[in-house]
Amino acid sequence: MLPPIEPAAHCVQTSAAPAFAGMKFNAPEGSRLMPFTMSQASLPVFEIGLNALSGVLDKAAAYAAAKKADPSVILNWRLAPDMFALTRQVQVACDQAKNGSARLAGVEPPKFEDNETTIDQLKERLAKTVAFLKTLDTKAIDASAGREITFPLGPAKGQMTGADYLNHFILSNFYFHLTAAYAIVRACGVDIGKRDFLGAIPLKRI
Amino acid sequence: MLPPIEPAAHCVQTSAAPAFAGMKFNAPEGSRLMPFTMSQASLPVFEIGLNALSGVLDKAAAYAAAKKADPSVILNWRLAPDMFALTRQVQVACDQAKNGSARLAGVEPPKFEDNETTIDQLKERLAKTVAFLKTLDTKAIDASAGREITFPLGPAKGQMTGADYLNHFILSNFYFHLTAAYAIVRACGVDIGKRDFLGAIPLKRI
Repeated sequence: MLPPIEPAAHCVQTSAAPAFAGMKFNAPEGSRLMPFTMSQASLPVFEIGLNALSGVLDKAAAYAAAKKADPSVILNWRLAPDMFALTRQVQVACDQAKNGSARLAGVEPPKFEDNETTIDQLKERLAKTVAFLKTLDTKAIDASAGREITFPLGPAKGQMTGADYLNHFILSNFYFHLTAAYAIVRACGVDIGKRDFLGAIPLKRI
Repeated sequence: MLPPIEPAAHCVQTSAAPAFAGMKFNAPEGSRLMPFTMSQASLPVFEIGLNALSGVLDKAAAYAAAKKADPSVILNWRLAPDMFALTRQVQVACDQAKNGSARLAGVEPPKFEDNETTIDQLKERLAKTVAFLKTLDTKAIDASAGREITFPLGPAKGQMTGADYLNHFILSNFYFHLTAAYAIVRACGVDIGKRDFLGAIPLKRI
């Protein structure tokens, strides 16, 4: 049987409850039915992804050292001649997380110079981005689902509601560049697997 | 000034409202502050992404025809020797969307045979996956944020809350394979760009 649902406590469609009769709810005491928020679908996703990419860069550095290869060869590698090299993929992954989250929170994103030329500098940029994400107001992000967000789009501007912007623009672009960066490192022969891509996700193995 | 907030109508942190004073809210009449839901962050994301990939495969087919190349060369191309070839990337992208969404909705996902050998067959699988997604109960998905989801993970099983499963496992894996598939096609020389990856997103250009 389902635990009693606290009325209007969260965004939960109680009409769906019968479908889950007999299933186990393990949400923390006092918040049996968990809400789903914009901040939860953005900030920790970016933090985990960017930290994972930092770990992938560590493995790339170790690989280059072991092979006595110049790390800049890996940093300039590409999946296709007209796709960004690794350095730029890392920079853009950072910027998607930083700029997207800032716009949802209603604050001006800081501008980072695109001047990294070493793995250590790219790791610093990743750390700087994660540190910035921690300064953002989660409540402001949570309230942004229906707000119109205007953002630069090539020579013009794009406009989407906050929820659409997160679901269909920030996350897709973020993961695009995160995956491209990972795939470049793997294509260079570095021994990494899906776990290195996913990073420290809140997964329980049973 | 902000429009008045309907009390407890949605999951909105009203304490954040002052941060948006003077900003424009364009949510539809009667739902001024839009909720953010699990179904909204999953089903349309997968549909748009899978349909976009179908379009990318169309361009791959046209490219192969124009170059008089065997399409199976593209279908067997890889970003790295130990990463999946294009055919498998497409199959797994479909399965992440299908299986992940089904588990959130509390239903058993259908099993698709992995027997596609042509671009047309892969496009059919993409369409079949999108058709399955349309059968799922959005209210059941919306109610799954705090529910524990158990899912196959290699030889063992993984367990996460619904929200964590969507944010940190389904979406990340879905985008990983979607990006890898796209990058393989682009690495083969097909003339595609970021718009082909993003697909028919609800974007207004201004």
